[in-house]
Amino acid sequence: MREVAIIGVGMGKWGEIWNDSLRDIYVEAAVLALKDAGIDKVDSMYVGSMTPGLFVGQEHLGSLLADYLGIKNLPCTRVESACASGGVALKSAFLEVASGYSDLVIAGGVEKMTDCSGDDATYALATAADQEYEVFHGATFPGLYAMMARRHMFEYGTTREQLAYVAVKNHKNGAKNPKAQYPFEVTLEGVMSSVMVADPLRILDCSPITDGAACVVLADLETAKRICKKPIVKILGFGHATDTIALHARESLTRLDATIVAAERAYKMAGKKPSDIDFAEVHDCFTIAEIIVSEDLGFFEKGKGGPAVEAGETQIGGKIPINTSGGLKSKGHPVGATGIAQAIEIVSQLRGEAGDRQVKGAKVGLAQNMGGSGGSCTVHIMEVV
Amino acid sequence: MREVAIIGVGMGKWGEIWNDSLRDIYVEAAVLALKDAGIDKVDSMYVGSMTPGLFVGQEHLGSLLADYLGIKNLPCTRVESACASGGVALKSAFLEVASGYSDLVIAGGVEKMTDCSGDDATYALATAADQEYEVFHGATFPGLYAMMARRHMFEYGTTREQLAYVAVKNHKNGAKNPKAQYPFEVTLEGVMSSVMVADPLRILDCSPITDGAACVVLADLETAKRICKKPIVKILGFGHATDTIALHARESLTRLDATIVAAERAYKMAGKKPSDIDFAEVHDCFTIAEIIVSEDLGFFEKGKGGPAVEAGETQIGGKIPINTSGGLKSKGHPVGATGIAQAIEIVSQLRGEAGDRQVKGAKVGLAQNMGGSGGSCTVHIMEVV
Repeated sequence: MREVAIIGVGMGKWGEIWNDSLRDIYVEAAVLALKDAGIDKVDSMYVGSMTPGLFVGQEHLGSLLADYLGIKNLPCTRVESACASGGVALKSAFLEVASGYSDLVIAGGVEKMTDCSGDDATYALATAADQEYEVFHGATFPGLYAMMARRHMFEYGTTREQLAYVAVKNHKNGAKNPKAQYPFEVTLEGVMSSVMVADPLRILDCSPITDGAACVVLADLETAKRICKKPIVKILGFGHATDTIALHARESLTRLDATIVAAERAYKMAGKKPSDIDFAEVHDCFTIAEIIVSEDLGFFEKGKGGPAVEAGETQIGGKIPINTSGGLKSKGHPVGATGIAQAIEIVSQLRGEAGDRQVKGAKVGLAQNMGGSGGSCTVHIMEVV
Repeated sequence: MREVAIIGVGMGKWGEIWNDSLRDIYVEAAVLALKDAGIDKVDSMYVGSMTPGLFVGQEHLGSLLADYLGIKNLPCTRVESACASGGVALKSAFLEVASGYSDLVIAGGVEKMTDCSGDDATYALATAADQEYEVFHGATFPGLYAMMARRHMFEYGTTREQLAYVAVKNHKNGAKNPKAQYPFEVTLEGVMSSVMVADPLRILDCSPITDGAACVVLADLETAKRICKKPIVKILGFGHATDTIALHARESLTRLDATIVAAERAYKMAGKKPSDIDFAEVHDCFTIAEIIVSEDLGFFEKGKGGPAVEAGETQIGGKIPINTSGGLKSKGHPVGATGIAQAIEIVSQLRGEAGDRQVKGAKVGLAQNMGGSGGSCTVHIMEVV
């Protein structure tokens, strides 16, 4: 297998976008990524998107987005793994370049979520859970993650305040990210008194509904060295795994096995261990998710994720900065684009382009992207050459 | 890149299936493919499915189907390219094995289409067209293909009878396929007098709404030689391309450029030319599609596809047998599964397991799978070792 690098990144401003449609916001991100890479052509493209069929009545994104990007007859494949769709797009593009079949491949992600009503968006997102055994009975994601939170509090003494500290930290980082949907800070009291969604999760524990797209350009290392003017960021390894789609079918509610296995695979392929990672972007769809994932990636012992965030260990400047971009919480969560935006933050940090949220001396970063209640997960580990 | 072979194939009976759900029919096909390959574990899985979100309210098939297949933590990626979803699943699995990352990978496809009403199915399928510029104005696929048929008749003198001959031939083949949804013959008069759908296309010019799944197991050639007890079928090459998603944006209505380019790429990679192909499975979603595709793959000069089918050149025993399985027309068209079922027919023929529909001396087969009105296409060329 050939070594693979990311040589270009691009994303527009995320938020509630009324003047552009799905195809427009995707093409904006792709053009920015091509411009960043200094090229105007690629061999192939992968697009992660969760459910454009339900959100905007449009499938066949491979054809649509290659068409509107204007690269004639470009092979383009849409991939889907619920909220980990971006992560599987990155993995798929990685494998195509690693195989030697293509030298330059775009991995992108897009979701246009605000064109449908709130009820419809909740239904669309719930199709990532088990339709027959969870959704039919009324379960939606805030409820599923609330059960994980309650159990984590029961087993490990995690506090309501510790959940809130995740939101406070991520909004503090997101306030420094001009692309973020909600680039403002929130206070502990603000989170604790925000409207209840599914006890114990309040509205400021939840990632928002977002329109957005993100793209990166991958190249084999030789091509990257030839054309890349910026520091080259290598993808050292990835891991991908699934778990039972339904939460009730798992041994534990406080462990995400797909994340544990995907991380093991990524660490092994990259030749790294948790203590080698300088910073990470993780899937904080709800505040409890970041706490559990920070344990399952091996950054903290099981049950210690809550105290770690309270103690500031995951802040910029802490032991292991997490979600320097603002995370899903503040940056936004256009589900299919999230995994790619995580990779963009890793690249920005490793290039030293992260501005006010720069992690000093960052050499190795990790991105963890998750679908459903943890039914699928990808982990990518990157290093600046 | 490593050489890649298909070592197992599996599909159940296709049709209107009321007693099993999407997960059940997929697992049946996957288990049959594993059994045919003589293995009980794989490294990874790809699943092609067009729009399970709209058909049955379920996305995140990667997690769901790996879960129900029972291979713990299996990496599984759903891919989508409308009706070419199966073809892109096959391509994606090919690249993962070719890269050296995995030795054994399932490429599958599934669609459960009959759980929603006819109106809803028409809407769901139309999401493969351009929602904003085609569907919004009332266009659906029978209408789009009818325009292609009218123009082909105008430019090349293709007759209404020649369209009907495609259906007659494919049903004759499908009558010998025990997995086919409609395993019976139809007559020329029967097709010509069937109910009108979109002039000149009648109901027997159209592929049906189908529930079905199909799976193949891919292995690198060394692994294949070690474990495969049946003749080994190598994938010599593939091509993948897109075209404008909207029909009105193309230079010609009687040429499918994504097919032309995908075929060029596949022929080049395989080191073959059209005259080397012994038989082919092509995407006959409507009878006109088979005629145009048979020209664009290089089997007949442009405009001669109609006379060729009338003269029997695409029958079993003819110059180039096309759709020996019965094609989408008779076998059925569960959209995400079709590309994989085409590969299964190629393997069955190359192994000499095709029974009453066996093409004598078949050594090299081609499968062409298409999305939308030709907005995306994959072509795979296979040879028996």
